[in-house]
Amino acid sequence: MIVLGVDPGTHRTGYAFLEKRDNRIRVLEYGVIRLKDGAPLPLRLEQLHRELQALMVVYDPAQLALESIFFARFPQSALILGHARGAIMVAAQSMGIGIFEYAPRMVKKATVGTGRASKERVAAMIQTHLGLKQPPTPADAADALAIAFCHLIQAGKPA
Amino acid sequence: MIVLGVDPGTHRTGYAFLEKRDNRIRVLEYGVIRLKDGAPLPLRLEQLHRELQALMVVYDPAQLALESIFFARFPQSALILGHARGAIMVAAQSMGIGIFEYAPRMVKKATVGTGRASKERVAAMIQTHLGLKQPPTPADAADALAIAFCHLIQAGKPA
Repeated sequence: MIVLGVDPGTHRTGYAFLEKRDNRIRVLEYGVIRLKDGAPLPLRLEQLHRELQALMVVYDPAQLALESIFFARFPQSALILGHARGAIMVAAQSMGIGIFEYAPRMVKKATVGTGRASKERVAAMIQTHLGLKQPPTPADAADALAIAFCHLIQAGKPA
Repeated sequence: MIVLGVDPGTHRTGYAFLEKRDNRIRVLEYGVIRLKDGAPLPLRLEQLHRELQALMVVYDPAQLALESIFFARFPQSALILGHARGAIMVAAQSMGIGIFEYAPRMVKKATVGTGRASKERVAAMIQTHLGLKQPPTPADAADALAIAFCHLIQAGKPA
């Protein structure tokens, strides 16, 4: 099974495609979609939708995993983030890709073993789990790898 | 010029197509997209995106007008609303439709003449302005008519 992990943002969105086969997890691709700097929000959302869908066509993931969000910490950015999540959900749903959500602490627990861990620690553990030559960068791509990894080793609940 | 007003929601989304020609404003259509009750959010967003885009194909609006949102009043619902706005923005932007935003008090001022007015008063004034036989219903459709009307008589700023 191929899964796509996404770390949504309205400036950069991290993505990672992982494949699980014969109980082994393999990295197919990961990276960041950089949205047009200074462009109006609708334009960036359309670019995000289009580029993510192009990647989905290439890797044909069965499922998409996202972090669930809590508005409480950064209400204004969570509101804008909602727009990016909407664009991503439409892209996936229209291709019949199942969508799953995980709380950030679930993602950390799955990768590091504890719900409290620094981003650096998560990236280092992801490097180990996935046999990467170095810790994945940038941070958005590392987060996307962690979410996809978490999904593959958990039984997630649909969004 | 044909404009589309939208009152976004993740359960019901109101829409209204108005045409301005020879300084007269004419109602082409208005109504509500009812999203599948109890369906997961991604499914409702995809339905919203798809049905709105189908309407855009029929009426070919040049511009879309939305109310701007302020998270402060209802943070959790604003966050979810962000998802619907993202789906709507992607639908419009991918068809080359310009997107404009108005603060709720601007919409009231444009329709009623004051920034503070009840929904009923807005609906009654919209009925008068657009020569409708009765006040438009349901509320989401009336709001969409008001936003489209506001856009046609204002010089809006792009989103």
